[in-house]
Amino acid sequence: MESLAWLGGRLRILDQTRLPREEVTLDLNTVGAVAEAIRSLRVRGAPAIGVAAAYGVVLAALDAETQEVRAFLARLDAAIAELAATRPTAVNLFWALERMRRAAHGRAEAGADVAALRAALVQEAQAIQAEDEECCRRIGRYGAALLADGARVLTHCNAGALATAGIGTALAPIRVAVGQGKRVVVYADETRPLLQGARLTAWELARDGIPVTVLADSMAGTLMARRMVDCVIVGADRIAANGDVANKIGTYPLAILAREHGLPFYVAAPTSTIDLSLPSGEHIPIEERDPAEVTHLAGVPVAPEGIGVFNPAFDVTPHRYITAIITERGVVRAPYAAGLRRLCGPGE
Amino acid sequence: MESLAWLGGRLRILDQTRLPREEVTLDLNTVGAVAEAIRSLRVRGAPAIGVAAAYGVVLAALDAETQEVRAFLARLDAAIAELAATRPTAVNLFWALERMRRAAHGRAEAGADVAALRAALVQEAQAIQAEDEECCRRIGRYGAALLADGARVLTHCNAGALATAGIGTALAPIRVAVGQGKRVVVYADETRPLLQGARLTAWELARDGIPVTVLADSMAGTLMARRMVDCVIVGADRIAANGDVANKIGTYPLAILAREHGLPFYVAAPTSTIDLSLPSGEHIPIEERDPAEVTHLAGVPVAPEGIGVFNPAFDVTPHRYITAIITERGVVRAPYAAGLRRLCGPGE
Repeated sequence: MESLAWLGGRLRILDQTRLPREEVTLDLNTVGAVAEAIRSLRVRGAPAIGVAAAYGVVLAALDAETQEVRAFLARLDAAIAELAATRPTAVNLFWALERMRRAAHGRAEAGADVAALRAALVQEAQAIQAEDEECCRRIGRYGAALLADGARVLTHCNAGALATAGIGTALAPIRVAVGQGKRVVVYADETRPLLQGARLTAWELARDGIPVTVLADSMAGTLMARRMVDCVIVGADRIAANGDVANKIGTYPLAILAREHGLPFYVAAPTSTIDLSLPSGEHIPIEERDPAEVTHLAGVPVAPEGIGVFNPAFDVTPHRYITAIITERGVVRAPYAAGLRRLCGPGE
Repeated sequence: MESLAWLGGRLRILDQTRLPREEVTLDLNTVGAVAEAIRSLRVRGAPAIGVAAAYGVVLAALDAETQEVRAFLARLDAAIAELAATRPTAVNLFWALERMRRAAHGRAEAGADVAALRAALVQEAQAIQAEDEECCRRIGRYGAALLADGARVLTHCNAGALATAGIGTALAPIRVAVGQGKRVVVYADETRPLLQGARLTAWELARDGIPVTVLADSMAGTLMARRMVDCVIVGADRIAANGDVANKIGTYPLAILAREHGLPFYVAAPTSTIDLSLPSGEHIPIEERDPAEVTHLAGVPVAPEGIGVFNPAFDVTPHRYITAIITERGVVRAPYAAGLRRLCGPGE
């Protein structure tokens, strides 16, 4: 199962809004189609959004009929702006778009023609995808060292293969640990409102034969109070310079619960999710989505018409609740400001 | 809107599984029908379950064709056992059934015949109902004193009129405060898996013209972090002698979140919810319900087939997280063991 694949001229994605009932792939061949797929969560998860957006830029590059470099770059910049406007929170989107922009503008300044720019953009998107696959594997290896044989792991939303171009972020340590012969069982918060835990995490773990139990988000406290779980691992959509983490709504209460029960709370994410430009989590833009996500289930209204709805898609977990951040370059612990700066190196 | 009404020979209930889309009443005229309605949550909420069960015993009494007192009492005891087996957590059920049992056996020992016993049982059930109405009003008055003008209250599940024979438990202070001219706005956790917050609390508050905003349970942490709420009020299904509270799943995490954010966490319940026979919350039996409540939405499967499901219907909030318990006899604060014992008096 692959969340996305570049077929040369078109981007094939597994439509995640249809899972787990139907495995439907969509072939996207315009930047508009990619933007729509990101906006409506057909492709989702911070790393996967970054990869999809990179291919969205490629599709715009292939579509642009001009041979004139300046006009070509203007088309690219418009495509990048369109993709950047899809979702505000996951920084991997902007990170990937910036890589694509630099790849084009840098080579244009060096004298490349439109054909060379197109080739460079395809190459850059494929590099972003390949690097994400490798990031997942490395996160998995670093994270697996934190899981004992018999570990019972609680996760939230889907930070698995479906959310990346590889084996996942939060689910990577579990997969690697299982590959090492450790027994691991997973508890998956269903993750209202869009049920990525019940629909996606349960689906992909069950396919891998990893035991998974779904619970409503409100049940995690009881799971912990009954000592049914040993640690929490979640993904991230953006990590500020001080280690504050924006992730799917419900992550913050989970972190507080974990601390209250003395359980480690791990965040697993590639360094592309780290945004050193933001000093703390309060600066991370939080997407608020359609009220109908809360008031309707499977198209059926479950709340009275006309009532108010609060539907933030993400929350911010202050770094003090986080035991460690697992990245492809190693595991960072408090103090996070120094650790993250060191990790991201002088070059970034 | 009344959750239930005795029509002499039958118990009319509003079928809460159909709300908010349809307002359907059901006339129940056998103990079996009442037991089914309780089991399937057509009538729900600890106080309302107690009142409904009392009328269930009345229906068994009216149905029993014998004129022989011992045979009549045996029929009653069987009906009480059937009703007691419906749901394990809310103690009001057992409390009401015990009142009905005592009313019958006590009068039988005093020489009453079957006709007199039937009359006594009707009277006892009506007393339970009337007392619950009065309890709600008094809880409302005590609780309203804790709400300032402009208060923003978060509640969980439905502890409103639908859950009682009166104006509710957790919602009573809100209604009384509004009646006193205070402006109060309510945030209602949707309360997975059965959405009593979105379906029932939002419905009954909107009918009363009280501003209500629904959110997924996982969003309460962000609501608090953004200082959008001033306190939490919830109901209770059983309160142990030390003040530990069993209530709808999701209450315990909410209490931890409230303490973490420095917000008062109130429990509102009649003294019939207090079970002095249990030293602490760990002794309260917690109902685990059908996995399909989690894996299906509006009849549509949302999780892969065959996965594990964890679906406890209630959780236990240790007394140390509770700011105060609001009862019809006053507001109790820590130390709860002494306060609850004093409240329940030597007579109970």
